[in-house]
Amino acid sequence: MAVAVPLPEPRADRARRAADVLRQQIHAGAYPDGLPPENELAAEFFVSRNAIREALTVLKNEGLIDRGPKVGTHIAQRKYEHGLNALLGLKETFKDLGEVRNEVRAAMPVAAPPAVARRLQLEPGEQVVFIERLRYLGDLPLSLDLTYLSPDIGTRILDHPLETNDLFALIEQVSGHRLGSASLALEAIPADAHSAATLQVPDGASLLMLGRLTSLDDGRPVDLEYIRMRGDRITMRGNLIRSKP
Amino acid sequence: MAVAVPLPEPRADRARRAADVLRQQIHAGAYPDGLPPENELAAEFFVSRNAIREALTVLKNEGLIDRGPKVGTHIAQRKYEHGLNALLGLKETFKDLGEVRNEVRAAMPVAAPPAVARRLQLEPGEQVVFIERLRYLGDLPLSLDLTYLSPDIGTRILDHPLETNDLFALIEQVSGHRLGSASLALEAIPADAHSAATLQVPDGASLLMLGRLTSLDDGRPVDLEYIRMRGDRITMRGNLIRSKP
Repeated sequence: MAVAVPLPEPRADRARRAADVLRQQIHAGAYPDGLPPENELAAEFFVSRNAIREALTVLKNEGLIDRGPKVGTHIAQRKYEHGLNALLGLKETFKDLGEVRNEVRAAMPVAAPPAVARRLQLEPGEQVVFIERLRYLGDLPLSLDLTYLSPDIGTRILDHPLETNDLFALIEQVSGHRLGSASLALEAIPADAHSAATLQVPDGASLLMLGRLTSLDDGRPVDLEYIRMRGDRITMRGNLIRSKP
Repeated sequence: MAVAVPLPEPRADRARRAADVLRQQIHAGAYPDGLPPENELAAEFFVSRNAIREALTVLKNEGLIDRGPKVGTHIAQRKYEHGLNALLGLKETFKDLGEVRNEVRAAMPVAAPPAVARRLQLEPGEQVVFIERLRYLGDLPLSLDLTYLSPDIGTRILDHPLETNDLFALIEQVSGHRLGSASLALEAIPADAHSAATLQVPDGASLLMLGRLTSLDDGRPVDLEYIRMRGDRITMRGNLIRSKP
């Protein structure tokens, strides 16, 4: 391609371009008092007002902004940032932003399915402790967390208040070990009907699904979690370094 | 909580528990020839066949499996893994899995909106190079990538074939610098109608949205990207270490 020829672009492409930059600006707190009028945004992005209107519809459908005639365009909710670089519990992460409260939906010994047993280096059918928590920050749910704990640690954790503590802190407390490392998998999945109702989002809403296996500092895996985070409330942030060639 | 009392659980909770473990097993390649029959899975997870059936419906709605009378339950598609620990392009990442092919939808100089200019440390309105690519692995789209490049680098990149190269490799080639680091933000968002059609997914499908600002090894930010990955085709994987207390 020796010469760059600007292609004729459908409006939806220009709208997407504006929406992506606006989304990031909103997350960065650029518009505490609401977004500028459409004509100002059109000038800022070098696109038509129709393209801006389409971009704002995209962001409204993501649950990020509210729009109304006369009242203008306002931020529906700020997203919270969860770190991809440090292994922290929610309560540790959001300690300056508000209280994390856990609704404990289950806390009980269960027989480990073979795949769970294998990851926790146990025998199939061995008892593990299963804990399910709906985690709130402020008035709204943030995530639905399913946790399998190694029996020696899990049994002792059941004696502690789960409503107000991160499991990470409790694991370190009852084991006498620091956590070492975790392997994690991040996906975007649609919320099934029941998970959606529990998290108070529409059926099929986008969830950030985090699978995480956490080990103690001696290398033993003790905590297997499946965490459904509301896509409209959480951004995961981190840094990467280019490896040597 | 001194004694752990098993709570009466709705079937949907048991189904979710089975679905989460099955999802991970499928990603790990545990069922190359399809999933075992419902009664075997029921025994494996210590739940009823109805709960297993509900779990399989969840995974079917995620696009992960196909089910049919007589033919059983098969894997609809394996997900590809993209690393959260190393800064790599798609082509570098999937070099052993197949060919990454880019459909170049736009490649042109544009005036930088103020928010883009700021992140690339340019003046508002300064020209940047905008590139939009629909990236395929095999026959299906994997991601839709919107990229803003610093003008000095972007202009030279337009002279190279964009269909078959990662931008990361081209940036290093034309700048004579190695990439240094990147800051990234990961979200789950619903696909707007036009992005959905482009990525060949249903309207509102869950996308993994990656915002990434990449700098050269001298610290200068040169590459701002907004990457929509198909939620049903990509898992991001990485490792975390517990920081010192």
